[in-house]
Amino acid sequence: MSDATRKLIERHWALANARQWDGFARLLASDLQYDVPQTREYIESGAGYLDMFSTWPGAWRATITRLVCDGDQAVCIIDFDVDGQRMTGISVFEVRDGRITRVTDYWPEPYEPPPRLSAHLKRRPAAA
Amino acid sequence: MSDATRKLIERHWALANARQWDGFARLLASDLQYDVPQTREYIESGAGYLDMFSTWPGAWRATITRLVCDGDQAVCIIDFDVDGQRMTGISVFEVRDGRITRVTDYWPEPYEPPPRLSAHLKRRPAAA
Repeated sequence: MSDATRKLIERHWALANARQWDGFARLLASDLQYDVPQTREYIESGAGYLDMFSTWPGAWRATITRLVCDGDQAVCIIDFDVDGQRMTGISVFEVRDGRITRVTDYWPEPYEPPPRLSAHLKRRPAAA
Repeated sequence: MSDATRKLIERHWALANARQWDGFARLLASDLQYDVPQTREYIESGAGYLDMFSTWPGAWRATITRLVCDGDQAVCIIDFDVDGQRMTGISVFEVRDGRITRVTDYWPEPYEPPPRLSAHLKRRPAAA
C-alpha cells in the first residue's frame, strides 16, 4: 500500500514536470480536495487542481527531497525551482483506489528568528 | 518499525507537553541534529534540543494533527498553542535504535496569495 502510494506521488511530480497533463489528470480523483492553509485557498475538484498546475507560470520544476509514505497517506517535500528562485513545498497527499483524493500544501518561507533563550541554537550564515 | 516510530514521536510530544524532561531526554540521541531551514538555525546535540524545549517560554501545548510514519522516518504536523495564539508546526523526524537522531522543523505562516491564473482557486474568509 505504501509502495503504491509512493509510486503515485512520484508519478504526480514526474508528469507535472513533463507537462504531461493527460497522464497527470488520470492520477486525480474527480472530487479531489486541495487546501493551502496559509492563504486559506482551496480547490474542490481534480479538474481545478489540474487547471492550477497547467496554468502555473514560469519554467518551474519540482524535485522531491523527501517522501514519507504511510498506507494511503504521504508527505512529500520538494524543492520548487522557478526563474532562478528556489522555494520549499510540503504537500500532504491522501490516496484512495489509486487516485489522489486530497492535497494540503504548505510553503514555509524564510523568516528572522526571535531572540532565543537557549544558547544551543546556532545560526548558519546566509547563502552568498 | 513504523509502529515503534509512531509511539516514539507520540511520546516526544506527550512528555514535552507534560514538561517531563527526564523522560524526554531519554528519547534523544546524544548527537541529535536539529535544523530550522527557514531561519538557518540548528542544534548539534540531544542536550541542546532538550535545553531549547525546556526553556521555551509560555504555557505552550502541542497537539498532533497528523503523524505519517515510514520506517525510521516520520512527519508530524502539530497545532502549537501558546498565549492564545495557534501556529502550525511540521517536524520531520529520523529515528535510530529507538532514539530520535534528527529533527527538521518548519513553521509555515499565513501569507497573502499572489494573483492566481486559475479561476478554480477559491479563498475562505478569514476567521473572525
